[in-house]
Amino acid sequence: MAQSTVRRTHHPEQATKSNVLSLPLERSQADRDPHSYERWLIGKLMRMAGAPPVRFRLWNGDCIEPEQQTPRFTLTLADPKALYSLVANPNLAFGDLYSAGRLELEGDLTDFMEALYRAVHSARQKWPKWLNALWKNHNPRATGISEAKENIHHHYDLGNAFYQLWLDSAEMQYTCAYYEDATKTLEQAQLAKLEHVCRKLRLKPGMTVVEAGCGWGGLARYMARNYGVTVHSYNISREQLEYARAEAEKQGLGQLITYVEDDYRNIKGQYDAFVSIGMLEHVGKENYPALSELIKRSLKPGGIALLHSIGRNRPMLMNAWIEKRIFPGAYPPSIGEFMEICEHGDFSVLDVENLRLHYAQTLSHWMDNFTANQNQITQMYDEHFTRAWKLYLAGSTAAFRAGSLQLFQVVFTHGDNNQLPQSRQDLYTFPATPEGV
Amino acid sequence: MAQSTVRRTHHPEQATKSNVLSLPLERSQADRDPHSYERWLIGKLMRMAGAPPVRFRLWNGDCIEPEQQTPRFTLTLADPKALYSLVANPNLAFGDLYSAGRLELEGDLTDFMEALYRAVHSARQKWPKWLNALWKNHNPRATGISEAKENIHHHYDLGNAFYQLWLDSAEMQYTCAYYEDATKTLEQAQLAKLEHVCRKLRLKPGMTVVEAGCGWGGLARYMARNYGVTVHSYNISREQLEYARAEAEKQGLGQLITYVEDDYRNIKGQYDAFVSIGMLEHVGKENYPALSELIKRSLKPGGIALLHSIGRNRPMLMNAWIEKRIFPGAYPPSIGEFMEICEHGDFSVLDVENLRLHYAQTLSHWMDNFTANQNQITQMYDEHFTRAWKLYLAGSTAAFRAGSLQLFQVVFTHGDNNQLPQSRQDLYTFPATPEGV
Repeated sequence: MAQSTVRRTHHPEQATKSNVLSLPLERSQADRDPHSYERWLIGKLMRMAGAPPVRFRLWNGDCIEPEQQTPRFTLTLADPKALYSLVANPNLAFGDLYSAGRLELEGDLTDFMEALYRAVHSARQKWPKWLNALWKNHNPRATGISEAKENIHHHYDLGNAFYQLWLDSAEMQYTCAYYEDATKTLEQAQLAKLEHVCRKLRLKPGMTVVEAGCGWGGLARYMARNYGVTVHSYNISREQLEYARAEAEKQGLGQLITYVEDDYRNIKGQYDAFVSIGMLEHVGKENYPALSELIKRSLKPGGIALLHSIGRNRPMLMNAWIEKRIFPGAYPPSIGEFMEICEHGDFSVLDVENLRLHYAQTLSHWMDNFTANQNQITQMYDEHFTRAWKLYLAGSTAAFRAGSLQLFQVVFTHGDNNQLPQSRQDLYTFPATPEGV
Repeated sequence: MAQSTVRRTHHPEQATKSNVLSLPLERSQADRDPHSYERWLIGKLMRMAGAPPVRFRLWNGDCIEPEQQTPRFTLTLADPKALYSLVANPNLAFGDLYSAGRLELEGDLTDFMEALYRAVHSARQKWPKWLNALWKNHNPRATGISEAKENIHHHYDLGNAFYQLWLDSAEMQYTCAYYEDATKTLEQAQLAKLEHVCRKLRLKPGMTVVEAGCGWGGLARYMARNYGVTVHSYNISREQLEYARAEAEKQGLGQLITYVEDDYRNIKGQYDAFVSIGMLEHVGKENYPALSELIKRSLKPGGIALLHSIGRNRPMLMNAWIEKRIFPGAYPPSIGEFMEICEHGDFSVLDVENLRLHYAQTLSHWMDNFTANQNQITQMYDEHFTRAWKLYLAGSTAAFRAGSLQLFQVVFTHGDNNQLPQSRQDLYTFPATPEGV
């Protein structure tokens, strides 16, 4: 069963690599009174974090109020060691403690994370060096061909049944949707995203497309179905590909789509379009020049490329907890680093669109679905897993709201290509959201 | 008279700094036969330039045909020294020789320049170091506050009467127009550009705008007239400002617009929008961090900034002749360098649009107007001036066509601003080209 595989790939890392999670040992100290320097430490920690409106409740029920403001949130620390983990490695420990239930929150999790991100973001500009070092996120894991497989397996092979519980039902897209207006549903916005991407690529029947990283293959099917193009889609997640192939067969699109189980680095041939939605985050900065060269040789002279990726306003490492527990190897590029990919290949950047708040909305829709199926998910995995994933969804929503993450869609062509669209008017002639969804 | 001032500022530089231009001396050699190594030199030069389809006619009438292709153009060298200048410093000498009439072209000047750019661009990738050094463009002149005044005076104070002969008549815009479709006229496309920019800034009545570098002030008048906003526009070209102020008064917009004769670095106050059309090319790379900080402090928390500038696919110095004779201090940033301006201020990039071929079309419309008024321009200045300007217009058209120049419009906001437009749909609801123009 897929689920039992998941338990094995997910839990060993937690048990061996993190001592924060071995509950019974530390709970033994939870009956002693807090020391006065422990209160002082919390005050210090909160000032460093830019004084978010948070009350701390200690293991014995004592409360430490935020300075000069009414608390909007209360954090309860279950035991003294939780406090020391938090001080020693706040980025990593917060997630681990919350997942383990040793840190409890009263108040909305997403709102709390947004308040925290905003407070830390402004405080960080005045931090001394040592504090930057303490709060620093570590470098992402390697993303060579063999490690990439491991990294992707860790996250994407959790089981299709799991993702079906909270992604859109039409194409199971685990990337930012496109909300033409804020009232649109997740189902509508995910289809609108596919349409928006196809329009940006100016697809015409008979064209050929190559896709690097295809998830459950929804974009390829949308392109084949609605634009009559031939698609080669690469992915290294076997479970996703099995689903993608079965769906394509079911829809009678087998002739137009080839799902290839291989690393994107092994893409062969030349195409009218090169597209990659939500893979660049896993590519690793050191591989950007090679990616650029790959696109260079895979794109026909008049072809158009589109990369869609989480990004940053300036270079910054991924949050340590996310990188360690959720997305090994992840690194969202800054807009400047993103442009280096284009510069390296002497490409001409035609269009950059930032869909930051669209991702906040997507994630909040995912959270709604996730919460609605929470009991089932806990039965499939366990309470720890459910709490970790809710924190990840809430934290990501908050990061997009607070502006610490961006979502860039970048369109580019070979530098000497003059077969360019006259303007972007054609993207907006009709609504991208399909009717009747 | 403005024109006589121009003669003085334009000619001394040519007479003192460039010996290429002192005709009578060198013409004396024009009656001798070419040496065999001079023929060899031309062959070598052409191979270095990537073998463009060009025939060389020497001063005695001898021709050197291009290898393995039919020539599309013929270049006639008037004297032996012209050949040596060309070999020693091709980027600079080509322009000077052409302007002086010591290099004549048969064939369309723009097409020739495009063929040359394309050939050199591909050849350049295989050049040895010494050749790169030979063909190198030098660093742009300084752009400190005092030099900036000098640089801008050199080009923009040539006389309003001169620019009126070939720019659009509505707002005299000396920047890239926006052609919603290729059939639009220059007049239509220049107004459409203003409209497109206003839409990107999401202007609403009562808002305040600051403009860095305003040319003849057309954007400010368009904004005040059509959007009811208050505009502060900065410029250091006195002659342009006099025109701008007179026009604003004539149109009854004096209350809404303040044209400030000062360097953009002295902008004061906070505004709903920060806009700069075609000034970044003159800012100088070393001043990008300061520009970013200026925008940071000039933009209200919910404000939108737009920079419109010539750019590059990758960092590259301005063509030596253009930098020396036409635009002192000019440096178009690469897309990566452009993004560094945004990264430095922790801005969030919302939208990048590349209007490269729109600039090619704009320039070609300017060339048509210029050519139609060529005799008058030669009477105002002289033959040398007219030839230099035609080469500059043709060369720029060619550079945009060949992809060696780009035109980027970049929209960005403060990183923590969530008052963002939902999508770009609103830019395309109605045509940007005004009716009845």
